[in-house]
Amino acid sequence: MIKSTIMKKHIIWHKGEINREHRWALNKHKSALIWITGLPASGKSSIAHALESTLIYNKIRAYVLDGDNIRHGLCKDLGFSSSDRRENIRRVGEVAKLFVDAGIVTIAAFASPYSHDRLMVREMFNKNDFIEVYLKCSLSVCESRDPKGHYRMARMGEIKNFTGISDPYEPPEDPEIILETDKLTIKESVKKIIEYLTAKQII
Amino acid sequence: MIKSTIMKKHIIWHKGEINREHRWALNKHKSALIWITGLPASGKSSIAHALESTLIYNKIRAYVLDGDNIRHGLCKDLGFSSSDRRENIRRVGEVAKLFVDAGIVTIAAFASPYSHDRLMVREMFNKNDFIEVYLKCSLSVCESRDPKGHYRMARMGEIKNFTGISDPYEPPEDPEIILETDKLTIKESVKKIIEYLTAKQII
Repeated sequence: MIKSTIMKKHIIWHKGEINREHRWALNKHKSALIWITGLPASGKSSIAHALESTLIYNKIRAYVLDGDNIRHGLCKDLGFSSSDRRENIRRVGEVAKLFVDAGIVTIAAFASPYSHDRLMVREMFNKNDFIEVYLKCSLSVCESRDPKGHYRMARMGEIKNFTGISDPYEPPEDPEIILETDKLTIKESVKKIIEYLTAKQII
Repeated sequence: MIKSTIMKKHIIWHKGEINREHRWALNKHKSALIWITGLPASGKSSIAHALESTLIYNKIRAYVLDGDNIRHGLCKDLGFSSSDRRENIRRVGEVAKLFVDAGIVTIAAFASPYSHDRLMVREMFNKNDFIEVYLKCSLSVCESRDPKGHYRMARMGEIKNFTGISDPYEPPEDPEIILETDKLTIKESVKKIIEYLTAKQII
């Protein structure tokens, strides 16, 4: 695989403005932001990574932004107060703008519980570039999954400001896609997002 | 061009960890961060954009991070004090990490006048992934260019903390590439960076 990268002997000089359409032409697909929101343990991260994996496998450039690569890096100075959550979401929105401009199908997976924070991100984008995906899953199902034990700790008061328990989750009113993740498998959820991207001629 | 994007009828489901090597294989080139530092008007932005344009034209995914797309977005809450400059550079470094992870040849063009700030970014990356490019150009040449009139305003005291005039520029001690931009054309400068990327088998 590494050998196949050592091909370009003759690089041709070119000067001129590069825009998103040039990148789309190079990649043979368009770009957009897929914003996945839902309660903790509703399936955000699993769906985001399975979607990324499926897209890359099908030669579509995709990248996941989530707590794992944002909270330990760009936003490591922020906590979980409502103002820090808002600044976290603002920065993710700004980074996503750069990624979408760079021609990448960008997948953001954040609880993003406040409607006005999600609206802030939506307003950073053109209408067709922002796709809100709401993972609709009852609190009781999410809590029964509790893969990281966070719900239990929140119930014990060991985690403060925990979305769904001690901090509100405001469901989207008019998301582009609703996935009932207490009924759908990950594969079925990914399929629905792919169908949407195909229908919108993004991929 | 748009038509060519509407091709994929059959998306094949795939689940599995995606890493940088998968992205390199898809793109047929590797990724790294090219960090361009130098005085105001030393040529950072011109070289960055000509490099990006040449790379994209040669089917290499590249993206410029600079004041234009960072200072008005991700870092619009920051000013030009030394602590704000440091936070600006930290955030750019973190975003660049995501871009390099996403398989993109990332070009950062910031004055980044303080050695310890540039070192902070260097330390975020593996050795081969960070390429510091120092645009060596005398203050007198930069000041005589003054395309935005900023040097004049700094001399008049109308701009405070202006790098080279009222705020220090600390030249890199051991950069990967030095370009004497008072002697080289933009095309010659881009050629030298391309030669480095080719020699290191990044492209």
